[in-house]
Amino acid sequence: MLLLELDDRDPKPVYRQIIDGVRRKIESGVLRAGDKLPSTRRLAEDLSLHRSTVALSYQELWALGYLDLRPRSSPRVRERVRIAGANGGGDEALIDWGRASAPAAGLAYQAYLQAERETDLSYGSSPVDFRSLDMDRRLFPLESFRRAMSRALLKNGASLLGYPSDRAGFPPLRETLARRLRSHGISVTAPEIFLTNGAQQALDMVLRLVAAPGRAVAIESPTYRQIIPLIRLHGLKALEVPVRDDGMDLSVLAAALRSKKLALVYTMPNFQNPTGVTTSQAHRERLLGLCETHRIPILEDGFEEEMKYFGRVVLPIKSMDRHRLVIYCGTLSKVLFPGVRIGWIAADRECVERLKAIRLFSELATSAVPQAAVHEFFESGAYDRHVSRMHRVFRKRMQTALRTLSQELDPEWAEWREPKGGYLIWIRMKPVPGRAVDWEGLLAGLGVKVSPGRPFFFSRTPASHLRLSISTVNEDEIVEGVGRLAEAARRAHAGRTS
Amino acid sequence: MLLLELDDRDPKPVYRQIIDGVRRKIESGVLRAGDKLPSTRRLAEDLSLHRSTVALSYQELWALGYLDLRPRSSPRVRERVRIAGANGGGDEALIDWGRASAPAAGLAYQAYLQAERETDLSYGSSPVDFRSLDMDRRLFPLESFRRAMSRALLKNGASLLGYPSDRAGFPPLRETLARRLRSHGISVTAPEIFLTNGAQQALDMVLRLVAAPGRAVAIESPTYRQIIPLIRLHGLKALEVPVRDDGMDLSVLAAALRSKKLALVYTMPNFQNPTGVTTSQAHRERLLGLCETHRIPILEDGFEEEMKYFGRVVLPIKSMDRHRLVIYCGTLSKVLFPGVRIGWIAADRECVERLKAIRLFSELATSAVPQAAVHEFFESGAYDRHVSRMHRVFRKRMQTALRTLSQELDPEWAEWREPKGGYLIWIRMKPVPGRAVDWEGLLAGLGVKVSPGRPFFFSRTPASHLRLSISTVNEDEIVEGVGRLAEAARRAHAGRTS
Repeated sequence: MLLLELDDRDPKPVYRQIIDGVRRKIESGVLRAGDKLPSTRRLAEDLSLHRSTVALSYQELWALGYLDLRPRSSPRVRERVRIAGANGGGDEALIDWGRASAPAAGLAYQAYLQAERETDLSYGSSPVDFRSLDMDRRLFPLESFRRAMSRALLKNGASLLGYPSDRAGFPPLRETLARRLRSHGISVTAPEIFLTNGAQQALDMVLRLVAAPGRAVAIESPTYRQIIPLIRLHGLKALEVPVRDDGMDLSVLAAALRSKKLALVYTMPNFQNPTGVTTSQAHRERLLGLCETHRIPILEDGFEEEMKYFGRVVLPIKSMDRHRLVIYCGTLSKVLFPGVRIGWIAADRECVERLKAIRLFSELATSAVPQAAVHEFFESGAYDRHVSRMHRVFRKRMQTALRTLSQELDPEWAEWREPKGGYLIWIRMKPVPGRAVDWEGLLAGLGVKVSPGRPFFFSRTPASHLRLSISTVNEDEIVEGVGRLAEAARRAHAGRTS
Repeated sequence: MLLLELDDRDPKPVYRQIIDGVRRKIESGVLRAGDKLPSTRRLAEDLSLHRSTVALSYQELWALGYLDLRPRSSPRVRERVRIAGANGGGDEALIDWGRASAPAAGLAYQAYLQAERETDLSYGSSPVDFRSLDMDRRLFPLESFRRAMSRALLKNGASLLGYPSDRAGFPPLRETLARRLRSHGISVTAPEIFLTNGAQQALDMVLRLVAAPGRAVAIESPTYRQIIPLIRLHGLKALEVPVRDDGMDLSVLAAALRSKKLALVYTMPNFQNPTGVTTSQAHRERLLGLCETHRIPILEDGFEEEMKYFGRVVLPIKSMDRHRLVIYCGTLSKVLFPGVRIGWIAADRECVERLKAIRLFSELATSAVPQAAVHEFFESGAYDRHVSRMHRVFRKRMQTALRTLSQELDPEWAEWREPKGGYLIWIRMKPVPGRAVDWEGLLAGLGVKVSPGRPFFFSRTPASHLRLSISTVNEDEIVEGVGRLAEAARRAHAGRTS
C-alpha cells in the first residue's frame, strides 16, 4: 500500500501533492526501481479522490520518468540510471573551461573578474555613492509603468507573447522613438530604428557587424569603460584618440585616417563618459566631414541625449548626417528604467537589415513585452512628464554639486570641467608632492564611493582622475559626499592618509 | 506676436501643445533662426495660462535645440545647422555596408535574405500551417500571465526596473527552473542556471565562449536550421554526423574524435529537430561516455523537454553528467510563450561564470521584468496546470496526425517515424519515377505550409524531406492538412503537378 499524506491546508492542488509525495519516496529510496504502485482506481479509493485526479498525477510522473505505465499492468517505479549529484558533489570536472574557451572569451573573463574585484572595497557607514550610473530609484515612475504594462498586455497580449513578428523590435515603439529622435533634430523613420537589449547590446551588435580580424576602431581616450573589453572580445584593435576640452583630438584622428582604414569611429558627443565633455557644433561638423571624406562610419553614442537640462547643447551629429554614415545609438537606461533593457540604433536602412540578420541568428528576437509597455508609457504622456521632472531634479542636483565642489575643494587639490548636462563630473586630483595617493581607498574609508579613472583608458596610464556620478544621489547626499571628498583631499595634502 | 492655437479637446497637456506648435512653425519656416519669441510673461497673458506652464515649454524647446534662452533678453529661434533629410531623401549613401561588414556578418546576411525569400510563397485560401514551430496562440494562458506580471511589478517594481543585480538572471526564477530541472532528473542548483534571451541566445553565448579560429563543432545532420548560419557567423567549422533511427551515428562521431579535437558536440536527444528522433538510454550513455573519454563538452538542447506527453522518453543526458561536461539548454518558447524570450543554460559553475563575463560586455544584463512575471506564473501553479493541459492537447493532436497520415498516405508515397512526443514529424517523400517534384510548391498550391528539408542540412543535399510541425494546428486542421498532403502525393504520382 502506498502511504501518501495529503494536506487540506496545503495550497498546492491535490494532484501535485501526489506527484511530490511519490517523487520524495522515490528519491529518498523508500520506493525502488520495479516497485509496484496501486492502480489509479485503488489509490483514488484510498485517498477519497476522483480517479482522474490520480490518473493526472501518474501521467505526469510517467512523463517525468519516474513511473512506467503499461496497459493492463500495475504502475511501477522506473529504473533511473545513475543520476549525477549536485554540482560540487566531488566528482572530477573533466573540462578545463579556460582551455575550452576561445582566447577572446578568456580576455573577457579576465576583465569580468577584475570588475568583480573592484566592487569589493569596504566602505564606512552610510556611504555616499558617486560611483553608480544607475538611475535614482526614488525617482522611478513605478505606478505609471505598471498601468502601462497592464494596458499593453490587455491590448496586445497574444501577439506580444508569440514570436515577435519584427526582428527590429515592436513597431509602435520604433515609431514613437523615431518621433522622439526627430524632436532632437534627427530625421529618421521607424524602418531605420532597430531596438536592442540596452545600449550595450547596440554596441555589441555594431561591432559584430564590422569585426573582422585585423580591423581597428577609433575610440576616445578615456572612453566608456565597458566598450574596452568588448573591443577585445571582438578581436579588434583600438586607435585611442585623446579627449581635449572640445572632444576627441581631431588632428590625431585625421593623421590616423591618412595612414590606415578604420572600421568605425566611436564617440559620445554629449556629456562624454567619463569626462563629461560636450563637443561644440564646429567640432561635430569637422568630425562628420572627416569621416565623410574617408567614408568611415561614426558610431554616435547618445546615451544621455535627453539630459540636456541646461539647454546649452547642440544637436546630435546624426542630425547633419545627409550621407547616412552615422550609426546613432540611444537608450532609456539613463533617463527612465535600466531594467527594461531598451536601447536602439538609428542607421541607414541597409545597416539595419544587416543587424536584423545578426539578431536572427544570435537571439531570433527580443521580447516585445517591455517594449510594448514602454510604448504605452510614452503614449500616455508619462514619458514627457518624467523627462521634465528629471530635468528639474538634475539641473538642481548638478548646480548643487558644482557649487559645493567650488566651495569645498581648494584649486590646489583638484580641477574639473563644468558639464553641460548629464550626470558626470571628471575630477583630476592634483599630485600631492612627494607621494602617490590611493584616492579610491582613501575615499572608501571616509564613506564615499567613486570610480577611479584607470578602467576608462584602453592602454595609457592616466593621471589621478575620479569620475563622480550624481545619478543616484540627492542634493543633501551630494553636499555630504563632496564634503567628505574635500576632507580626503585635506588629509592627503596634510600627509594623513591612513 | 506668436500665434498659437490651443485646443481644449486635445488630450495633450497644454505645455506640450505649445512645444509642438512652436516646433511646427520652426520646421515649416514660419519662424526663422534669430526670430524673437514673446517672453514667458507675455505669452502666458496672451494664452491665459500660468506663467510656469509657458516657462516649462520654453525650457524643453531650449533643451531640444529650438530656442536660445538668455537672461534679460527675448527668447530667439536658434540656428539649427543643415539638418539631414529623412532616409531615402536622395543624398548619396557613403558607406558600402557590404564592404564595411565583416565576412562572417556578410554570410549571416546572405542566410537571412534567403530565409526572408522562403516566406514569400503564395498559398491557397485558409492554408493549414505545418511549418510554424510557434506555439498555438489559442492555448495561451493570457489571463494568468497578466495577473502574474501585475504581481511581479507590485512586489519587486523598483528592483526589476533598475539594473539587474545578477548577470545570470532573476535569482528566484533560477531557483524555480533548477527545481523544475530536478524533476527531470537533472541535479542542479540556482548558481548553475544562466538565463538567456531564448534558447537561440543560449546557443550563441556558448558558441561565443568556444569560438576560436579553426575550431569545429559536431552537429547532427540534419539539425536545427538556425544553428547553421550561427556556426558560420562564428567562423567555426562543422562536423556533420548523420542522424539514424536512434540518433546521431556514434561510430562516425567516434572516428572523428580519434583524429581531431572538437570544441563541442551539439545534440537534441528528444524529438530532434527536424527528424523527431528520440534517442535511447543506451545511446545517451554511449554518447556521454565518448565525450567523457575525449573531454569534449556536450551541448544538449532540451528544447521540448516538457513535451514528453507519451511518457516513453528517458532522462536527459545531463541527468547522468557526473563530470559536468554537459551544457544543457532549455526554453519556455516551446511550451509556454516564445514572446517572453526566456531560455536557460544549466552547466558547470565555472562555465556559467564565463558566460556571465560575455553577458557583461555584450548586453550587461537581460531584463528581469518578464523573468519575474514568469516566476510568479510558476509560483501560482499556473505553469503546472498549463503543462498538463498541453500534454492532454498534444497527445491527442499527435495521435490524430499519426493516425491520419497512416490512413491517407500510401506507403508507396512516403515514410516517416512515429515521434515519442513533441511537435515534429519528419516525412521522406519517396521519389516519383522519372521526375523531381517541388513538394513545397505543390503543397502551397493546395493550401498547406510545410518546411522543406534542405535548410536543416549544413552541406549535404538530402532526399525530399518535409518537416511537419503540429504546434499551431488543432485536430480538425491536422485532418484537413494531411488530406491535402495526400492529395498532393496522389497528384504527383498521377503526373498532375501543375
